[in-house]
Amino acid sequence: MYTTRFIQLKYLVPNTVYTIFIPMVSSLLVYILYVVLGYHNIAIPLLPVTLIGTAVSFYVGFKNNSSYDRMWEARRIWGGITNSSRMWGTMVLQLTNDKETSKKLIRRHIAWCNMLRLQLRRNKVWSETYYQRYTSPLQRNDEDSFEQKADRILTKYLTPEDYAQVKKKGNIASYLLNMQNADLKALKENDVIDAMEYMTMCNIIQELYNNQGGCERIKNYPFPRQYAVFSRLFVDVFMFILPFGLISQIIELTPTVPWLIFPVCLVVAWIFNSMEQVGDFSENPFENAVTDVPMSAMCRSIAVDLQEMMDEQDVQERLKPINGILM
Amino acid sequence: MYTTRFIQLKYLVPNTVYTIFIPMVSSLLVYILYVVLGYHNIAIPLLPVTLIGTAVSFYVGFKNNSSYDRMWEARRIWGGITNSSRMWGTMVLQLTNDKETSKKLIRRHIAWCNMLRLQLRRNKVWSETYYQRYTSPLQRNDEDSFEQKADRILTKYLTPEDYAQVKKKGNIASYLLNMQNADLKALKENDVIDAMEYMTMCNIIQELYNNQGGCERIKNYPFPRQYAVFSRLFVDVFMFILPFGLISQIIELTPTVPWLIFPVCLVVAWIFNSMEQVGDFSENPFENAVTDVPMSAMCRSIAVDLQEMMDEQDVQERLKPINGILM
Amino acid sequence: MYTTRFIQLKYLVPNTVYTIFIPMVSSLLVYILYVVLGYHNIAIPLLPVTLIGTAVSFYVGFKNNSSYDRMWEARRIWGGITNSSRMWGTMVLQLTNDKETSKKLIRRHIAWCNMLRLQLRRNKVWSETYYQRYTSPLQRNDEDSFEQKADRILTKYLTPEDYAQVKKKGNIASYLLNMQNADLKALKENDVIDAMEYMTMCNIIQELYNNQGGCERIKNYPFPRQYAVFSRLFVDVFMFILPFGLISQIIELTPTVPWLIFPVCLVVAWIFNSMEQVGDFSENPFENAVTDVPMSAMCRSIAVDLQEMMDEQDVQERLKPINGILM
Amino acid sequence: MYTTRFIQLKYLVPNTVYTIFIPMVSSLLVYILYVVLGYHNIAIPLLPVTLIGTAVSFYVGFKNNSSYDRMWEARRIWGGITNSSRMWGTMVLQLTNDKETSKKLIRRHIAWCNMLRLQLRRNKVWSETYYQRYTSPLQRNDEDSFEQKADRILTKYLTPEDYAQVKKKGNIASYLLNMQNADLKALKENDVIDAMEYMTMCNIIQELYNNQGGCERIKNYPFPRQYAVFSRLFVDVFMFILPFGLISQIIELTPTVPWLIFPVCLVVAWIFNSMEQVGDFSENPFENAVTDVPMSAMCRSIAVDLQEMMDEQDVQERLKPINGILM
Amino acid sequence: MYTTRFIQLKYLVPNTVYTIFIPMVSSLLVYILYVVLGYHNIAIPLLPVTLIGTAVSFYVGFKNNSSYDRMWEARRIWGGITNSSRMWGTMVLQLTNDKETSKKLIRRHIAWCNMLRLQLRRNKVWSETYYQRYTSPLQRNDEDSFEQKADRILTKYLTPEDYAQVKKKGNIASYLLNMQNADLKALKENDVIDAMEYMTMCNIIQELYNNQGGCERIKNYPFPRQYAVFSRLFVDVFMFILPFGLISQIIELTPTVPWLIFPVCLVVAWIFNSMEQVGDFSENPFENAVTDVPMSAMCRSIAVDLQEMMDEQDVQERLKPINGILM
Repeated sequence: MYTTRFIQLKYLVPNTVYTIFIPMVSSLLVYILYVVLGYHNIAIPLLPVTLIGTAVSFYVGFKNNSSYDRMWEARRIWGGITNSSRMWGTMVLQLTNDKETSKKLIRRHIAWCNMLRLQLRRNKVWSETYYQRYTSPLQRNDEDSFEQKADRILTKYLTPEDYAQVKKKGNIASYLLNMQNADLKALKENDVIDAMEYMTMCNIIQELYNNQGGCERIKNYPFPRQYAVFSRLFVDVFMFILPFGLISQIIELTPTVPWLIFPVCLVVAWIFNSMEQVGDFSENPFENAVTDVPMSAMCRSIAVDLQEMMDEQDVQERLKPINGILM
Repeated sequence: MYTTRFIQLKYLVPNTVYTIFIPMVSSLLVYILYVVLGYHNIAIPLLPVTLIGTAVSFYVGFKNNSSYDRMWEARRIWGGITNSSRMWGTMVLQLTNDKETSKKLIRRHIAWCNMLRLQLRRNKVWSETYYQRYTSPLQRNDEDSFEQKADRILTKYLTPEDYAQVKKKGNIASYLLNMQNADLKALKENDVIDAMEYMTMCNIIQELYNNQGGCERIKNYPFPRQYAVFSRLFVDVFMFILPFGLISQIIELTPTVPWLIFPVCLVVAWIFNSMEQVGDFSENPFENAVTDVPMSAMCRSIAVDLQEMMDEQDVQERLKPINGILM
Repeated sequence: MYTTRFIQLKYLVPNTVYTIFIPMVSSLLVYILYVVLGYHNIAIPLLPVTLIGTAVSFYVGFKNNSSYDRMWEARRIWGGITNSSRMWGTMVLQLTNDKETSKKLIRRHIAWCNMLRLQLRRNKVWSETYYQRYTSPLQRNDEDSFEQKADRILTKYLTPEDYAQVKKKGNIASYLLNMQNADLKALKENDVIDAMEYMTMCNIIQELYNNQGGCERIKNYPFPRQYAVFSRLFVDVFMFILPFGLISQIIELTPTVPWLIFPVCLVVAWIFNSMEQVGDFSENPFENAVTDVPMSAMCRSIAVDLQEMMDEQDVQERLKPINGILM
Repeated sequence: MYTTRFIQLKYLVPNTVYTIFIPMVSSLLVYILYVVLGYHNIAIPLLPVTLIGTAVSFYVGFKNNSSYDRMWEARRIWGGITNSSRMWGTMVLQLTNDKETSKKLIRRHIAWCNMLRLQLRRNKVWSETYYQRYTSPLQRNDEDSFEQKADRILTKYLTPEDYAQVKKKGNIASYLLNMQNADLKALKENDVIDAMEYMTMCNIIQELYNNQGGCERIKNYPFPRQYAVFSRLFVDVFMFILPFGLISQIIELTPTVPWLIFPVCLVVAWIFNSMEQVGDFSENPFENAVTDVPMSAMCRSIAVDLQEMMDEQDVQERLKPINGILM
Repeated sequence: MYTTRFIQLKYLVPNTVYTIFIPMVSSLLVYILYVVLGYHNIAIPLLPVTLIGTAVSFYVGFKNNSSYDRMWEARRIWGGITNSSRMWGTMVLQLTNDKETSKKLIRRHIAWCNMLRLQLRRNKVWSETYYQRYTSPLQRNDEDSFEQKADRILTKYLTPEDYAQVKKKGNIASYLLNMQNADLKALKENDVIDAMEYMTMCNIIQELYNNQGGCERIKNYPFPRQYAVFSRLFVDVFMFILPFGLISQIIELTPTVPWLIFPVCLVVAWIFNSMEQVGDFSENPFENAVTDVPMSAMCRSIAVDLQEMMDEQDVQERLKPINGILM
């Protein structure tokens, strides 16, 4: 997530370069055919081109709206995880007098948050190369594999027995919630908590399952390609035919400077292309990309809140943005 | 569901062919009348045609929005089924000490998911021929009838007694939930679970009924035809009159190449038609079509999660996309 | 609800006829004044007319959106009634061992669904003449009065004592839920169900009250007239001034065929008018009209599901569409 | 709320008069300068004016959407009050055997609905003069002050002790719910209702607090002025510059009838202005204005439903619309 | 929050001044090059510029919509805090007979509301200078630091022991809810409240955590910069190229008054820029800015409601708007 009001140029420039390609090739083609070779028959009326422009901007707007909704829902789910985590913390602390038990339940919860984060960022929805464009400017000291990072989390927050039980599972986060439930049921069997309190805790576990499932849904079901691909195609087609429509108008207005076709095409194409792209690289919020929901920071924040609640002394630091990016 | 970033050409081409028909016929008509026969009186002003274009693209945008919402809601409901399934699994495991009982309840739940999937895909909303266009490129080894597939699921996951009781019912999925409830009530009568726990489980059953009902609602109530038919008619009318509006402008600009009417019409019509169609074949997400919610994969995924939760050894494989399509 | 992919012509034609009126009168006026009488001073520039067209199509789009939302919410509520009905059925069956009691409670629930349907369709939001246009093509053998139909339902599904108590009430559906609650409370007093189970059942009753109230809200609060009337007025004004704007352009392009004003106006006006109307006759989903939520079919479907759940033998048939219309 | 399909002219005319002002002044100015004084240099190109028109109609559409959502949410909340009221009624009747107690609790609930209505309509969001335009055509026999009307309600539905306790409070509706809670707690202390039933009733009270708070939110937080004021300013600016853009086109087309500027401007301005105003006077649904949510009718309707539920004999009449307006 | 129907000029003018900059510079450039130096080759066709205008107004509309949703959600959450606060008050009063305890719990709740408010307004999302533009006209006597204000609140509403425990915490509001929970658990241990009542209270605490988390989400996750920055850039680019497109049309229409470029550009640019800005400074509702959700007034209002509920005598005054602004 960008944390500065204006995005630094190093994030903006790579995209802009890519933007230029189609309209420049197309403008060059038109320039050579029409101006250099004098082959005037390639010109088409401008009005149908602007009609396409209007229709395409509707369609792109629809895509942007949906992409934004996906991102905002992802953030909302992680906000819900924060809320449920605090509730989990306070309930565990009040319901168990035994400090060991409450600590175990809370630390396992922190493990769950972090495992969810790691699992979500483990694979990319699209290829690595696709995202490289968006992430390359950002220095990351994050070369470890998923397994190494998961191991660090699990050994830090789980008891050795828990760790042994969990490490071979496919969906570790999901399994951790099952373990929480088992411990709570045991507490109930031992009459530490009563039936109502058990149900209250089960409701929180249900909520956490819902949150985890919500994240996985957004991750595993990207914006449907039938919608997205056409958005891309429409903008490409529009950018391609734009100079064919513009050239006669430009020649008519300023016959001596036909090269005006280049800047005019470029500006129009840049705006349409940027609109298309901004939604395109925002629709997937769990990709280790600069536009991610800042899950690392939120996991840390949850840990800090829970440590403070347990009146621990050496509370960790909250994460700060690096180069204007909070992960 | 498409899983590749770009849709393979073999899925795109059939639609494009269909797309060409009306504008080509109409352009040809205009070309013959205006250019060949010199009958210039068929030209109409372009401005009202672009006005229609703008209005139509609004209307189509509204339809796309609604279609997307239907698809996304369908996916959301299946996400909810995943969440409730995990909750079902963990609760059943904690509440019953008896391994047989918990296994029976969980396997019956897997049967429910799969029966819901089969029932949803059983009949098509529209005729087979309509969807053939979208499914023909995909090889399916899925020639069995609904009854054969249902039988396979029910014999695999149900006990023989359950199977006998259920097989003649009209809505098997719905009846399976009723059986779950009966077993839970029996557990409560035998004091295995208490009143609170029974209520918690009833809430999950309620949630599963809601999810099933939500899917059936989307299946049985397609995007209202009064809205959809007009969207189709508007685009067809627009594509038909487009060359009548364009011809005079094209002749004026490039009198020697009147055949430019063909590519210009084609591009504009292709964009409007594609916009219309993308929503049209996305609005029904349970049709065994390439744009379906990947229910087969999700049912498998739920089964895997639950098997892992039961600490079973030989866990099934998750489904992988075939030819870029996940079903 | 239309169940065929394309709406049959007999439903489409009556509206189209109405559509033609204003633009034809206006075109004729312009034709006579401008062409026949040669009074050229009535022409106005086309650009402000297209601007009006754009603004009006926004406004109409907003109205269509809202109308669709109303219809979709109505369908969603009836989907919720289906879900709650199944839950009601399974809970009643598990909670009472006494077959008579459960049958009574379930049959009374079926009476509730049907009474809600009849009450919703009892009066029309607007006058009978307004809807006649939309319903006339459909043959109905449904000449009975509300009282007769209500009587048939109540005598079929209620016990005689219930019938006597309920028949004079103003809002019978609402009162039936009150009776359900009274019976449940009695079951609790007799220790057939415990406190938790009573609460679970009360929650279902709350849900049913919410569903009933939701339907009544949509019925009693049509799309606010201040929004709807202006939508109608805008389209009418637009259709009226359209030929005044078009005539000079048509004369300029094809001076010898001034009658092109008629088809061009007609097409543009037909599109705008159809947009307006499609939302207008879809906004009220409980009017006994062809675009209704298919409540009769859903009530039958609920009855079938519940009969199947009670393992009854002679289950009723589900309703089938007649002439492509499901009611 | 308007209850007739077409709004009566006496409600439409006052607004239309106001509508005419700016465009008429501006057209007159242009007419005098351009036509009478022959000062042609004030003409500006029409294209930027239509661009403004398009942008403004987007913005106004956004405002209309939000206003409609506010109104619809208000109606939805009052629908929720109806639902909760019925649930309150049936629960009170089943939970208490004592007729006096149930009557007291139900009558106090009716007092709550009516007090909420009176409190919401007590003050106007904007000045009296602003709304006068919309309300003047409607005869009201409603000259009593808030205090008189509140007194009538409270003495009618409350016991004298309740009345004494409540009459000096600032937010009487809110306090009445607190009294309901106190009575319920007393019933629980006396073992008339058990813990579960008390919780069920508390949930209804929570729901009623939510509904009351929802209404107060819509009342106290009108559509944010930074959005609304600009909508007004944009339309005014657009209406002002419109004739400057139109005049040269009109002169070009019909040089002998320059006064066409008046009707053309008027039509365009009327459409834009009406769009703006329809949202503007619909955004506040609790103002004693003709577009109000019909709270009086709904309060009466709730009272009737509850009286019927108590099997009372002399049930009140439901309110009917007066002059096509239901309050 | 503005409370007057029209925003006072002193709030509008600063923004307008800023608005003028880019279009004036650009117009001046065009004027000098084209008119003064006679360099006519810089003119570009107007149609692509209006196409950009249409596309940009879509995009800005999307941004405005999202900003408004953020603001409205913020207000809705604070409405929810009001509702939960009343519920908290009535429940605490009924559940505890001990006046000291209920007073302590209610006063601590008031402290929570106020601490949440202070924490939300503590830091600005963007720099101080950015907001200065919007706040400078408003006189504030609010020079105290966050620590001073927090201290005032905490010492006023908390017991000394609570104060000591809480004052060093990082997220004081969050910790206060934990303390509420601890007290409730103690009440349950002492059999003052039963299991059901404890669960009801826990649900309210969960709701309050959700509300707090919702506010923090809106505060910490501003409208994503990738969307916002492009909106700003698009409008700036549009305003810059606008005079290049307009100049030839203006010269053609009124060759003797080329300076018309200035007012025409200014009006168009002002409308687009205002649209962009109105969303931009509304998206963050917790910044101590004039468009804030009026949290101070709402906290006071909650305190008044709760004091009234406790039948206290010297109830505080509700806050009134100052200079048309309610904070």
